[in-house]
Amino acid sequence: MASSSKFAALSSFVFLSLLLKGANAQTYQRLGACPTLGCIFPPDQTDFLAGQLFDIRLEVHAPVNGSEASNGGVPDEKFTLCIQKNRGSCVDAAKFFEVQDPALEKWNFTYYEDLFAEDANQLTHVNVAAKAYRALSLTEPGKYQAKLSYNGQARTVANWVVREPGKRKAKNVLFFIGDGMTQPMITAARLIAHKSINGKYQTLMQLDQMEALGLQMTHSIDSFITDSANSATALYTGKKSTVNALNVYVDSSKDAFDDPKVESIAELFRRKTGGPIGMVSTAYIADATPAALCSHTRDRDQRASVVFEYLHNASALTPQYDWPTSCKGPDVIFGGGAEQFIPGSGSYNGSDFYKAFQQEGYQVVYSNTELKAVGNSKKTLGIFSIDNLAKWLDRNVMPENLKNQKNSPLGDGTDALDQPGLKDMTLKAIDILQARSRGKGWFMMSEAASIDKMMHALDYDRALGELLELDDTVRASIAHLEKIGELDDTLIVVTADHGHGFDVFGGADTKYLAAQTTDRKKREAVGVYKKSGLSGYTVSPDVSPTNQTILFGAQGPNFPVQWNPRYAYAAGFGANPDRRENYKVNTAGPRRPATQGSDGGFEANPAQNTDGFAVSGTLPIDQGQGVHSLQDVPVYAKGPGSEAFRGVYNSVDIFFKIADTLGLGDTRKSH
Amino acid sequence: MASSSKFAALSSFVFLSLLLKGANAQTYQRLGACPTLGCIFPPDQTDFLAGQLFDIRLEVHAPVNGSEASNGGVPDEKFTLCIQKNRGSCVDAAKFFEVQDPALEKWNFTYYEDLFAEDANQLTHVNVAAKAYRALSLTEPGKYQAKLSYNGQARTVANWVVREPGKRKAKNVLFFIGDGMTQPMITAARLIAHKSINGKYQTLMQLDQMEALGLQMTHSIDSFITDSANSATALYTGKKSTVNALNVYVDSSKDAFDDPKVESIAELFRRKTGGPIGMVSTAYIADATPAALCSHTRDRDQRASVVFEYLHNASALTPQYDWPTSCKGPDVIFGGGAEQFIPGSGSYNGSDFYKAFQQEGYQVVYSNTELKAVGNSKKTLGIFSIDNLAKWLDRNVMPENLKNQKNSPLGDGTDALDQPGLKDMTLKAIDILQARSRGKGWFMMSEAASIDKMMHALDYDRALGELLELDDTVRASIAHLEKIGELDDTLIVVTADHGHGFDVFGGADTKYLAAQTTDRKKREAVGVYKKSGLSGYTVSPDVSPTNQTILFGAQGPNFPVQWNPRYAYAAGFGANPDRRENYKVNTAGPRRPATQGSDGGFEANPAQNTDGFAVSGTLPIDQGQGVHSLQDVPVYAKGPGSEAFRGVYNSVDIFFKIADTLGLGDTRKSH
Repeated sequence: MASSSKFAALSSFVFLSLLLKGANAQTYQRLGACPTLGCIFPPDQTDFLAGQLFDIRLEVHAPVNGSEASNGGVPDEKFTLCIQKNRGSCVDAAKFFEVQDPALEKWNFTYYEDLFAEDANQLTHVNVAAKAYRALSLTEPGKYQAKLSYNGQARTVANWVVREPGKRKAKNVLFFIGDGMTQPMITAARLIAHKSINGKYQTLMQLDQMEALGLQMTHSIDSFITDSANSATALYTGKKSTVNALNVYVDSSKDAFDDPKVESIAELFRRKTGGPIGMVSTAYIADATPAALCSHTRDRDQRASVVFEYLHNASALTPQYDWPTSCKGPDVIFGGGAEQFIPGSGSYNGSDFYKAFQQEGYQVVYSNTELKAVGNSKKTLGIFSIDNLAKWLDRNVMPENLKNQKNSPLGDGTDALDQPGLKDMTLKAIDILQARSRGKGWFMMSEAASIDKMMHALDYDRALGELLELDDTVRASIAHLEKIGELDDTLIVVTADHGHGFDVFGGADTKYLAAQTTDRKKREAVGVYKKSGLSGYTVSPDVSPTNQTILFGAQGPNFPVQWNPRYAYAAGFGANPDRRENYKVNTAGPRRPATQGSDGGFEANPAQNTDGFAVSGTLPIDQGQGVHSLQDVPVYAKGPGSEAFRGVYNSVDIFFKIADTLGLGDTRKSH
Repeated sequence: MASSSKFAALSSFVFLSLLLKGANAQTYQRLGACPTLGCIFPPDQTDFLAGQLFDIRLEVHAPVNGSEASNGGVPDEKFTLCIQKNRGSCVDAAKFFEVQDPALEKWNFTYYEDLFAEDANQLTHVNVAAKAYRALSLTEPGKYQAKLSYNGQARTVANWVVREPGKRKAKNVLFFIGDGMTQPMITAARLIAHKSINGKYQTLMQLDQMEALGLQMTHSIDSFITDSANSATALYTGKKSTVNALNVYVDSSKDAFDDPKVESIAELFRRKTGGPIGMVSTAYIADATPAALCSHTRDRDQRASVVFEYLHNASALTPQYDWPTSCKGPDVIFGGGAEQFIPGSGSYNGSDFYKAFQQEGYQVVYSNTELKAVGNSKKTLGIFSIDNLAKWLDRNVMPENLKNQKNSPLGDGTDALDQPGLKDMTLKAIDILQARSRGKGWFMMSEAASIDKMMHALDYDRALGELLELDDTVRASIAHLEKIGELDDTLIVVTADHGHGFDVFGGADTKYLAAQTTDRKKREAVGVYKKSGLSGYTVSPDVSPTNQTILFGAQGPNFPVQWNPRYAYAAGFGANPDRRENYKVNTAGPRRPATQGSDGGFEANPAQNTDGFAVSGTLPIDQGQGVHSLQDVPVYAKGPGSEAFRGVYNSVDIFFKIADTLGLGDTRKSH
């Protein structure tokens, strides 16, 4: 056999001289990016933009018990760090960075080694000695090694690279994030919104027509599935981190604000150019994807502090930790999340943050009508709902669903019936940023947040509505930038932060499905291969099917003509809670696939899709929604610098590509 | 509300002047690419390469009953076709193509209008009048209209485009098809085969490193989910067709060989350049993806006839239908499928097709050893197994599974223990084609067929093994072409023909899963987000996890070190039959997820994954395997002409891009 000779030839060959630890391929980890007992953050394999600010955190762990029990549970307090540049000598870190040696810190934490230990409630205790160096930078491109010495002969080495920076090519950057958006979703959106004749689409998505196509790998630093916080951190800082972390590496201390920070693209843009910054999202505005532009915490749930940091800065939030960079109050903040602004339990210190923003010079708007009417010269805060904004499908096709939500951003218990969409917010943000840029250019992030939120809810129709709204917003933004003469100076990038394992696999005769009485017979309504048929969404139900002239739907071109055809697409997820499927659009508002059952775990929601068939879940029963997935996500770019976005690369490369297009790297020594 | 004003502005606006029919968005269709009662094939929206041969089929339908009942069930026999070039006058087709007016044909067929009709056994009967024009071509680039007049005033218009052809840029084309391969699978393969440190891969897939990245839309002409026959037809001919069709449009007659043909890239290459052709697959060699290179039938199951056509041509198979082009016996045919060669029920007319190929000058090999030993100068047939070839995982990691298969290509009931892999076959094929090319260049298609076959079986481990073998084959082919001095003259394209809705969504502690006693508790072994951990496949189980030097696995770099780690990836499908999941590799051979139950439909196989949890299916119960999905599939290219493969486009464009790179378009009038 060929295989045995291969084995003999290769099995003793050392692949890498690096030591790789296997202990972290696990459900629980002691500390993700620190598989050994000596930790350096930023860890091994970190790349930096020249001049980008960052903290260093060192930790030495001494587990008291468990498989790694060490030194009687007493951590070495005499650990040292030196930095070696290229092939030079290794210089003590304080001397290298010309700072004081930081004070020693000590704490402890616990964790479970695996699920068996959790069931048995067998905690592993770990004592920690630590230090932190704050607000450093490396300006000279090249290779560095940070070497931590501890426990006598033990060493942890972090290989760092400062990349050679690029020269500015674009004045403005418009960065769209379709949260959770994947290529299978884009394919499905094209199917329902664009007319095809004999296998040829007559129109295409705007995304299909961008100048550059790429793919980026979304995984976390310490788990192969990411959340939106640390994936946004990767996109904005060029640094992979841990689930729930915003622009920090996660250390093992309990403090959610002492973790080592990294500087984001928005902070860099503000610090280096002074130009205006925009932050637009259909989520609550303290949600992870906008939050990672301008805040720093290991815990994305610190919503009030996130908004405090938007307005002020990290040093005002935690004066004990030096962090001399911030967004200095983004010029545009549009989204939901009035809970962090209305004085009360959701706002920082219970304060009125509408007032706080007004005191710093912001004009504040609360509705789409006010948004359109307001002037472009001032910093502008627009908060349009208590929590996430309404979905495109509900705003545009099923507006009855906006009623009885008691979600006015004023907090007066009325309904937020006049909410803007992503397009409304983005076009207005362009105008404000342009008015405020004074030749410096501008940077904006615009997020279609509810692609993700609706995919979590397995409400694929609403998710595709959000995706189509994003596509329409990109299209309208290109047209608007062309109109105001900025298109040739603007890099437009559209990507996602992670995926959901979603795909269309056939058609479903919803009439036949609903008419059957058993689950197994209902499943015969699904048509695969040839029986999938053609898209039922691009033809009007109101006209004879064999002789209709094709009209726009009520929402215009690039959207479905109807959302509830008899022959629907049948889609599924790689993972899901227990659920019922009928393949009809949810007319009463977003889907809630599962509810808690008698064992405390989630079961199929007995009140939804009652004419559908039951599908058992594949997720832990504490998950009531779908979850993120592994697949690489697409990147589309247009404008100056867009050619750099072609090909397959790591999510962190997006940061460097944008920073280089804006010329934000700075090789002048400044630490 | 914004939506109501939009409605008023847009609802009466006509989007396209074309008429689109809605009746075909259905489970069953009268005839897919013919929604009206007058049919033209090639239908509306067809593009042609200048000089490419094709047939025209015209049909006029008269349904006897059902919703389209017409003219008392008597079809108009006086229908006429004229062809209009650009803005010229419409010329009778026989005159335009300088051929005789073909004879009238008549037949009838039946179909069900929907699932309710099928349950009630209510057939719709259709009578047909038809004609066929054979072996035509259009050489002048530009726009054409084919106009069918029938039933008095009724018209069917087909808009055709002959594209402006390109000049030859590459001598050779090496075209890889990963059957069923999607980006989520590639991401998963990267996870298990490439080592990552703190979120940075230390090596990458070869596919990640190609020069050009694109995405192509795979849908059929008349259903949005495709099979491998008509998707291969699209890739090889530039024409979308119907499920199961090989290089023909599907007409409504019963004859599987009278449907209107189109000329494939392999036939064109042979006819225009005289250069050698290679066909390599890990499937039985009459399977759809190789078959579509060199055969023509609406029914991919006509395996014996497909192999007959490889050796001879369509005119020998069906002398009554003129088709003066063929592959003239591909110079290399490597794969499985001895059933079509051993004299007996599987071979054409029961003949010995090994002997038939030898009589036409082929050397024949039956094992990897013979493959490596044989000379490069002659046409070569290599058949290595009765049916599909063994899977990479079984050949390389679990060779015991090759035993007791009784699948020797000699048909003697012994085991085919010495089977080559895709890399063995592809590298040898390059050498033979190169030796036979005599400066004319060569064209080869190499298919990793069992990515698809194993994804159908929900055996994702084996599917990813096949994908990694494809990636390794691309890598080795580049190195080999470099070595023989042909790399700069060879366009390499790697793509897929369709997807499966597969994605990784977390990790699974297989030890914990197996130890639990209830399905709901077993599901808690799945780790999502942070609990997904890191890849357990890139570390050795034989070395202490905290201090191991990293070795290749037995299969060398770019493959997993181990296939059955405690912490496995957890993956799922958009659609599947009932199944049981334990997330362990199937050590006894390919997975068989479902078997037929008491109601005749498929249920979870009670003999596999018995320590796993049950998952109910979402497919019709006559489907015992997973099914194809909608998502666009990736395209990777390298070499001369590769830049044309960037961006997002239709599958049919792949044909034109390859044909243009080879300069196969011919604008000299020759019909």
